[in-house]
Parts: sequence; C-alpha cells; structure tokens
Amino acid sequence: MASTTCVAGIDLGGTKLRIALVTPRGRIAAAGTWPTDTHGGPDAVVAQMAAGVRDMRQRAGIVAEDLKAAGAGAPGPLNIRTGVTSTLPNLPGWEDYPLRERLSAALACPVALGNDANVAALGEHRFGAGRGVKHMAMVTLGTGVGGGVVVDGRMLEGTLGAAGEIGHVVVQVGGRPCGCGRRGCLEAYAGGHGLERSAAALLASDPRGPSSELGRQSVAAGGPTTRILGLAARAGDPLALQVFDEATTHLAAGLVTLVHLFNPELVLIGGGLTALRDLYVDPACELARTLVFPLHARGLRFGYAALGENMGALGAAALALDMIG
Amino acid sequence: MASTTCVAGIDLGGTKLRIALVTPRGRIAAAGTWPTDTHGGPDAVVAQMAAGVRDMRQRAGIVAEDLKAAGAGAPGPLNIRTGVTSTLPNLPGWEDYPLRERLSAALACPVALGNDANVAALGEHRFGAGRGVKHMAMVTLGTGVGGGVVVDGRMLEGTLGAAGEIGHVVVQVGGRPCGCGRRGCLEAYAGGHGLERSAAALLASDPRGPSSELGRQSVAAGGPTTRILGLAARAGDPLALQVFDEATTHLAAGLVTLVHLFNPELVLIGGGLTALRDLYVDPACELARTLVFPLHARGLRFGYAALGENMGALGAAALALDMIG
Repeated sequence: MASTTCVAGIDLGGTKLRIALVTPRGRIAAAGTWPTDTHGGPDAVVAQMAAGVRDMRQRAGIVAEDLKAAGAGAPGPLNIRTGVTSTLPNLPGWEDYPLRERLSAALACPVALGNDANVAALGEHRFGAGRGVKHMAMVTLGTGVGGGVVVDGRMLEGTLGAAGEIGHVVVQVGGRPCGCGRRGCLEAYAGGHGLERSAAALLASDPRGPSSELGRQSVAAGGPTTRILGLAARAGDPLALQVFDEATTHLAAGLVTLVHLFNPELVLIGGGLTALRDLYVDPACELARTLVFPLHARGLRFGYAALGENMGALGAAALALDMIG
Repeated sequence: MASTTCVAGIDLGGTKLRIALVTPRGRIAAAGTWPTDTHGGPDAVVAQMAAGVRDMRQRAGIVAEDLKAAGAGAPGPLNIRTGVTSTLPNLPGWEDYPLRERLSAALACPVALGNDANVAALGEHRFGAGRGVKHMAMVTLGTGVGGGVVVDGRMLEGTLGAAGEIGHVVVQVGGRPCGCGRRGCLEAYAGGHGLERSAAALLASDPRGPSSELGRQSVAAGGPTTRILGLAARAGDPLALQVFDEATTHLAAGLVTLVHLFNPELVLIGGGLTALRDLYVDPACELARTLVFPLHARGLRFGYAALGENMGALGAAALALDMIG
C-alpha cells in the first residue's frame, strides 16, 4: 500500500486510549484501542500514545514523514494556549503536565490539544451528524456531562480553550452536590453518576425501596447502576421512572439554556447514556422544544451523534488538520 | 460645519427612543431622546425615527447623502436574517413587522437590526468598557435581564440573531414564574420586576412585613419598587436584605453558567440596576468568581458598562458601520 499523508487523532480517556490515523478527507486508515496506563503517570501515557501511533502507522503502511500532525482530546480542563493540563479528574498525577510539548517530542510532529467533549463535538461537526451546520451545540452524556459548541462553523474555544463546559451550567441554585464540588450543575442530574446517586438516595428514603424492582436488582449488583436503572424503568418500576423524570426536567433546563444562549440550528446528544434515550433524553429534547422562545424553536433540530467510538479520535484528527491548514 | 460621513444608531426602547449620529471613529455628532410613540404602532415609530434622524442631521450639519447607513436595536427577539420583529413585549402591535424594510425606506439608506441587549454589548465592545477584548459576555440588568456575547471579537448571533438571551437561562428548575411565561429564568430573580415581585411576596408572607421599613415605604409608594428596595436595604431592613441575598445567589449562578460556557476574559454588567451594585451585583460577581473552575477564573475580570445612555445607540451605530464595511 502506498504511503499517504495523514494525521493522528488521539482520544485519551480515563479508562481507554483510542488512536486513529486519519487522512485529510476524514478516512480512518487504521485505529486501535488500549487500556489507559493510569498508574504510570503522564509520561507513561505519552509513551503509550507514541507506541500506539507507531503501531497504527505500520499497520496502515504509512511512513513516519507522512504523519504531519497529531491532535489529542484530554478528559478535563486544559489550557489550550499553553498546552498544559489542569487537574484531570480521572487521571491522577496530571496536574500542570506539559502534554503538548511532551507529546510533540514523542511523535516528532506538531500537536494540537482540546478538551475531550469539545473535541468530540468538533468530530461530529466535521465528519458526523453536524456536517455543514453553522451553529451547533453538542451535549455528551456519560459518567459526567460534557459538551462543545460550534459558532459560525468554528469550535467555540474561549480565552483558554475552556468554553463549552455544559455539564457545569447551574440548573438548580443550591441543588444536588455535583462531582465537581459545586451544587446544582447539570451533570449532577443528567450524568451517569448523578443518576446513580439519585437512585441510591431514593432507594434509601422511599419505603417502597427494598421491595422494588430497582431495589432488588441494586442489592444484587452492589448499587443502582445506570444499566439497572434502565432495566427497572423499562419494566415499569416507579422509583426508576421517578429518577428519569427528574433527569428529564433538569436536562431539558440545560438544553433551554443552551438554545437561548447560542440559538443553534442543531443540538446533538452523544455519549454512552444515549442508550437510555427513550427514558430521558428524547423526553428532555421534546420538553425543551416546548420551553424555548418561538424564535429559537424555528428551524431547531435535536439529533444524535453518529460517529460512535471514533468520535473523539476523529475530532482530535480534525484539530490536527486545522492546525496544519 | 463641513458635512461628514456618518451612520445613525437607533436605540428603540419601550418608553424611550434614543438616536445618535456617529462617525466611523465612534464620535457622536448629535444625539437626542424622545418618548416612544407606543400608541401609534410600528409605522408611527418608524416615522418618529426618520424625523429624529433628520433633526439630528440638521443639528450636526450633515447632508442626507452623508448618512451611509443606520442600525437599530429593538427591545425583544427579532429575526435578523429577515429583519422582521417577533412579538416585542413592551411594544404592542409589533408582531411580524418588517422593521428593516420600512426603516430603510424611511431613511433612504441600508439598515442593520439587532436585539437591544446584543446591540448594547456590541456598543461596549466597540466603543466602551470592552474595547479590544476577544471573549466577553455582558449582562444587562434592567426591568428585565438581557445580554450579549462577543466570541473571538465578533458578536454572537446564532442562527437567527437570537443568541445571548442571558435573562432566560434556567437557574432554578421549577422555580419562580418569569415574565416570559416560563419558570426559573435568571430574569425572574435578578431583573427589576423579579426583585419587586420577590419583595411583594415576602412582605405578604413574613409577619414582620407590615411594620418593616420596606413594608411602610412600599405602602406609601403603592408597591415595593427597586428604588425603595435599595433604600430599605441600605437602611438595614432585613426583608430587603433577604431579597437581595436571593438575587445575589441566583445572579451568581447565571454568571457561573456564562463563564463555564464561554470562558470569557471579561464579564460586563450594565443597565439601570447597576445603581444597586453594592447590594447584589458586586456580591454576585464575587460569589461567581469563587464558584467557577480554577481554569475559568484565570484572568477573568468582572466590570461595568461605561457608555451609559449612549450604549444602545453606539452599539446600533457599530452594527451599521459593520454592515457598510
């Protein structure tokens, strides 16, 4: 196979590392997934990234000189102007790590960085469900809640690249504690951890708890996971349905906030919890549509991300492609 | 005086109409204020605008040919792509009025339109406290709450020019009814009407109400106005202080939402209620600073609008200047 120009898209997660070699047209030449080496600290992960990129190059028959750049999305706030990570909640030991500099040295090419949820939104905008859309907001529903916004066809970065923290808009002043240490964030209601804590609290306080479908399955599993919540709700369990009702109203409030601030034509929802779309995501989108101003509702579409496991890696590749122009 | 090229900036409010003739450098050649003719409907207001622009031209010695364009900010949502107003809450009879077309015909020059709060933010960005700032959000605290956002030096418009509805981000799911018909909007807590309704409800429910400073002054005035609330709070009245405490936490939540979504370097506060800045605006900014992520707090400034009564007219002039390039 003849060598071809490409970039590497690196999606760094707290548990998995996904790497794709991507052509300028967005075709994936090779891709692989590794468990993130969380114990070895950032230098070990950078070495893992470099080895993964080399493996993918060899598999695709791409010579080193044809790797023109790399992009990487990191799971947490990072200063994209300096390329230095802030605290990454799921990766201990990453405080103030010069990720861009180290990764660039390891790969021997220029590197562009982004927050993982911003990068995922960029991926969907460039290669997925948001192609050709000028104004778009994307919400990623996973263990936490993230997001990214496209304004006039360009990724919204803000001063330090920290824009689009959709999980931490406040939907309930003085509300439920969030994993971030604040109260009332959207993430505390609509993310996986939030749903689980909501279910655990309800099971503990409601007299129907122990005998409910949700209660019995949770005991067996050592706690109410989102999977169990979904099963119980689909079986008609009233407590599980109550958890999703609450998640629906709060997610809808977050969507209203996004639509009123950005007046997008498309709101995309992505992330693992879209597996529960019938239970709270679709209902929240429908509710939000009735709650926004008529002018904002005009032409507004809600939709789902299309790139699946390659979303982050393709977005990171788009970052790299944009950097080399 | 020699004639000079200029544009007209028109700030249409529910009670007042302000018009300024502005040079390309942002100098005001002439400006005036009129009571808005709310009874005659939109055609009468357009005639009033045309007469006002003509008066200002004559006062400044500017011939008709040197008026190159006009910009206008309207008090409510309007579709800037079509130039047609939506319902303007404070101006009856403005549903689906082709404002841009009619105003352009009356002034015999091209016209650019914007939402008044967006336009005010543009004014501060171009000629006021936001000059040279790349990423800025502005919150206007008046009877209602409005706003505007600058992203990478450009006004955030969204699909139909309806972006930046900061007054209608949801800070309290299921919370206090807002003038817009929804619940829990920032405006319901931090705008003038919201403060007054909050005070009236507290006076009616709290046993200290009738004998309080706030209660006595409100009876004399026919209701608790924001002016009376301010006087009572500064005199130490506990009910008035409670109203401002609540406004502080909710305004802070709205500011946190803005900072997490836009990662701005500057958040400006403008509008008539900045007269109460010591009672809830400064405290809300201070509280918001402690609540945002460390990365977002880095380099973040809060400040006040600088252009006073000319903010809207100068912003509208900036719209016009941008249109003619």
